[in-house]
Amino acid sequence: MKISAKEAAMLLCAHDRILILSHKNPDGDTLGSAYGLLRALRSLGKTVRTQCTDRLPQMFSYLADGVQQEDFTPEFVVAVDVASVSLLGDAVTEAYPNVDLCIDHHHTNELYAQKTYLYDGASACEAVYEVICEMGVSITPDLADCLYTGMATDTGCFRFSNTTPKTMRLAADLMEQGARYAELNRLLFETKSKERIAVERMVLDTISYAADGKIALICISQEMVKESGADESELGGISGIPRTIEGVEIGITMREKEAGGYKISVRTAAYADASKLCAAFGGGGHIRAAGCVINAPYEQAKTMLLEEAARFL
Amino acid sequence: MKISAKEAAMLLCAHDRILILSHKNPDGDTLGSAYGLLRALRSLGKTVRTQCTDRLPQMFSYLADGVQQEDFTPEFVVAVDVASVSLLGDAVTEAYPNVDLCIDHHHTNELYAQKTYLYDGASACEAVYEVICEMGVSITPDLADCLYTGMATDTGCFRFSNTTPKTMRLAADLMEQGARYAELNRLLFETKSKERIAVERMVLDTISYAADGKIALICISQEMVKESGADESELGGISGIPRTIEGVEIGITMREKEAGGYKISVRTAAYADASKLCAAFGGGGHIRAAGCVINAPYEQAKTMLLEEAARFL
Ligand SMILES: [Mn+2]
Ligand SMILES: [Mn+2]
Repeated sequence: MKISAKEAAMLLCAHDRILILSHKNPDGDTLGSAYGLLRALRSLGKTVRTQCTDRLPQMFSYLADGVQQEDFTPEFVVAVDVASVSLLGDAVTEAYPNVDLCIDHHHTNELYAQKTYLYDGASACEAVYEVICEMGVSITPDLADCLYTGMATDTGCFRFSNTTPKTMRLAADLMEQGARYAELNRLLFETKSKERIAVERMVLDTISYAADGKIALICISQEMVKESGADESELGGISGIPRTIEGVEIGITMREKEAGGYKISVRTAAYADASKLCAAFGGGGHIRAAGCVINAPYEQAKTMLLEEAARFL
Repeated sequence: MKISAKEAAMLLCAHDRILILSHKNPDGDTLGSAYGLLRALRSLGKTVRTQCTDRLPQMFSYLADGVQQEDFTPEFVVAVDVASVSLLGDAVTEAYPNVDLCIDHHHTNELYAQKTYLYDGASACEAVYEVICEMGVSITPDLADCLYTGMATDTGCFRFSNTTPKTMRLAADLMEQGARYAELNRLLFETKSKERIAVERMVLDTISYAADGKIALICISQEMVKESGADESELGGISGIPRTIEGVEIGITMREKEAGGYKISVRTAAYADASKLCAAFGGGGHIRAAGCVINAPYEQAKTMLLEEAARFL
């Protein structure tokens, strides 16, 4: 059943011994929501803890500053930024098969909880902020930091198209309530791991241009991944690099598979249809971002890609 | 004489044949202010043109979309985002020695104009927005794009400490009035030139770490600059790279001078005093960012720097 922010606030106010769940591979939004809600509920004198099947990533450790996790049998279970029960992880689902309340912002939310406050906006932290305001909690700087984190991370620091005027205004409120936004943004958006820097260096060495610089292609080999020590999350943004180059319409990333062959990711800037390009190799996707697989040696796969891509300019 | 936004609006409304001046090496703020003000004044039926001693950079060409520059003898001269008359460039100052109105946000404004509206905030575009609102102009999407550009570029897309709650709220207003923020942000913050990518690749090859990864050092040689074809503006952000690496407290950039020797830039993350470190080599600066010059061969200069830096950890 869908409910409003006010009803979610009333439910939370009516319960104690509250467990807050985040989704696996946690991001700034699910964690900012969880620690923000924990701080708000504790300020009302409630017994609360957070749980996630994965460890709190080092870069988000500030969210938990000063928070001691308590052990207790929960009376009320809340999931934040969790669109599907499968995202909780098996161990969590087994221990807590019933979720009483879900606060989320994904259109795709499966409404698996008893009650769901489904917010239409950029981040779950905006939804949690509304619920916290309904509870009459005053926002401390630590709490403001938590909620700012989700708003900033889910919108690429207010850059992406999902940012709304409301996101901007709620973030402004949090800045007034003491969010350390400049420090947070440096930590969240300007910090790269040594492994990421290392793999980026190797990948940049592979850049090749075609069609007068309108096509750029890079390759991430198994050897680069091994040598740099980068993990999957650190490889994330790399396929975005070719399209960020001035004048490039089609950006192609070849990622060598463990068993050989290549996973191809294509991003386009303004007019070329990435999904049609990938369809030529049995893949698909969207107009600006698509993918396919090519099981061929490097030079051959590269030549096929560049020839096909040139037809889309 | 300092005046208010309302008085600036009244002055502009009382005049026609208005020339708007931007500062040299123009950025998004001075250009967004100029084209925004031009669009607002033209919507009131006035004859207006903009002028800058340097050409409109390609990345900002959208600001002038649909704008035909007219030739006329100005009756009223306005400077936007220009803190000092010297920033107009000699040719402009010679042609227009008298500036009637300055709309700016730099504390250091030299009050060279007849009247100055000095705004206390992140960008001149915020000040221009206030003046435009006082004039009762309705904001079109094109105008919103211009003003959003200055707010976003002067704050690193709302990341830096100069961002205020007011900046966020004014940007929210512009988003509602049709600013194409997602496209603009991709263009302004995610695009790198091929030359910049090339020099970055070469510079990343020079990274070395010391003191358990707490010190990172890179070098930009004359040869890299020549080979990549990167110009000064494209080299700008590079000295920021070492400090963005996770765990690095002291980031050092060695920039080879044309005549030999190195210009050193030091950035620190949390506790090390960059100005004291540079003082050891006769330089200086601030706690988090400082510089010096070392006239020694590469290996020797590097060793001296790493040894000195280690003492500040
Ligand atoms: Mn989210
Ligand atoms: Mn400015």
